[in-house]
Amino acid sequence: MDNTGSAIKAVIFDAYGTLFDTQSVIGVLEATFPGRGGYLTQIWRLKQLEYSWLRSLSDDYQDFRVVTREALRYSLGTVGLEAGASQLERLVAAYDRLALFSDAFPTLQALSGRRLGVFSNGKHDMLAELLNNAGISGLFVDVISVDAVRAFKPSPLVYRLACDTLQLPPDCVLLVSSNGFDIYGASRFGLKTARVERLTTTELRKQFGPEKLIGPAEIFRTLRTQLEDLGAVPDVTVNSLLELPEAIASM
Amino acid sequence: MDNTGSAIKAVIFDAYGTLFDTQSVIGVLEATFPGRGGYLTQIWRLKQLEYSWLRSLSDDYQDFRVVTREALRYSLGTVGLEAGASQLERLVAAYDRLALFSDAFPTLQALSGRRLGVFSNGKHDMLAELLNNAGISGLFVDVISVDAVRAFKPSPLVYRLACDTLQLPPDCVLLVSSNGFDIYGASRFGLKTARVERLTTTELRKQFGPEKLIGPAEIFRTLRTQLEDLGAVPDVTVNSLLELPEAIASM
Repeated sequence: MDNTGSAIKAVIFDAYGTLFDTQSVIGVLEATFPGRGGYLTQIWRLKQLEYSWLRSLSDDYQDFRVVTREALRYSLGTVGLEAGASQLERLVAAYDRLALFSDAFPTLQALSGRRLGVFSNGKHDMLAELLNNAGISGLFVDVISVDAVRAFKPSPLVYRLACDTLQLPPDCVLLVSSNGFDIYGASRFGLKTARVERLTTTELRKQFGPEKLIGPAEIFRTLRTQLEDLGAVPDVTVNSLLELPEAIASM
Repeated sequence: MDNTGSAIKAVIFDAYGTLFDTQSVIGVLEATFPGRGGYLTQIWRLKQLEYSWLRSLSDDYQDFRVVTREALRYSLGTVGLEAGASQLERLVAAYDRLALFSDAFPTLQALSGRRLGVFSNGKHDMLAELLNNAGISGLFVDVISVDAVRAFKPSPLVYRLACDTLQLPPDCVLLVSSNGFDIYGASRFGLKTARVERLTTTELRKQFGPEKLIGPAEIFRTLRTQLEDLGAVPDVTVNSLLELPEAIASM
């Protein structure tokens, strides 16, 4: 599939937070729990990732739908809310219908001459729903779920899985991700990495002006949008997926 | 040392957040960076734990002082602050002088007939400083640092280290911790667990009244003070360490 002469033989995209906006669950949360949507959106995502790390570190893997459900239940509990089993499933299903970032589709189209994949913490049925709902399933050759090795990002097991699935050495694979821990893990394993920095440090700092309130959304952005200080440096940083085709062309 | 006839042959205490108040760095942070102390205190601790999990999960261990430094540097960066090497070390050293919770000393004295230990993510020199500065070194038979196995809580490796060091089976060891991830990991490994719930769920929820601002401190408490929804249930829950001697007597 690759007729570009590039050293990059496959481009794999992180799903949650990179192609898809995890903030887009706010609508259904706010409609279900008026006044709590913003708060729940942030705590849910922060706890979902935390549980993925804790479970993976504890050799106590449960798939990402279970982790997503546990994190939501925890989040609701902090504000005295409970959801019955069916309501909980309905809310968890919001993660199957996340909004595609507006820069994703045109970028994927522009890269259609390359071998493209999705590489995600989501289990296969979650990813199938997500891609189908966004109408982009047909754009990917590979849909790789960490579920196959029962570990979550940034465990080295999952980056090995990606390379094994692609049958490519790590340095021929480009991971595109806006998640700092994913850039860290992939870089450690030897993949090429493109970091999507949708919120620059300069923009982030503007939220800390003296008149600004620092609430759940600001804390989320603080914790989740910046390059981690773990020694890994991405091969390229873009502020939008739209910059990706040009960046890849020079790799 | 144990002449109580109890099934519990050793009581080991988590340090950061259980015996010692991680919130007590706020003074030096606020003095150094006026107006930012509260924010930095929360982000620093949240990121410190996150980095401990990410590094351990990635087989990329660095000791807790390194992790603490990286987390502080990240936190400062989010608000456009930088610290030189010596200032950074001075601030990191605040974690060696954390305030002892007021319920810790009387509880440790009341339990002096038992074999007591500290079991912590901190490396040995950090723990030595911490215990010496608080004047409680002499109360512990065992000071166990995860550094010996180059992994962080809740990796099963660290709970095995604790039992091996104590030369006791897991169910004869009681871990006392206010950290949900620690209760989870210890419980999974078969230790007895006492959760210190300094902030009850009911009290936590009061921060979400309509007139209350949800800022960094509230998000920290939301993420870090509640029982995790990961399937592990502590053997006993106390609201203060002072309740511990009586709780242990009946175990």
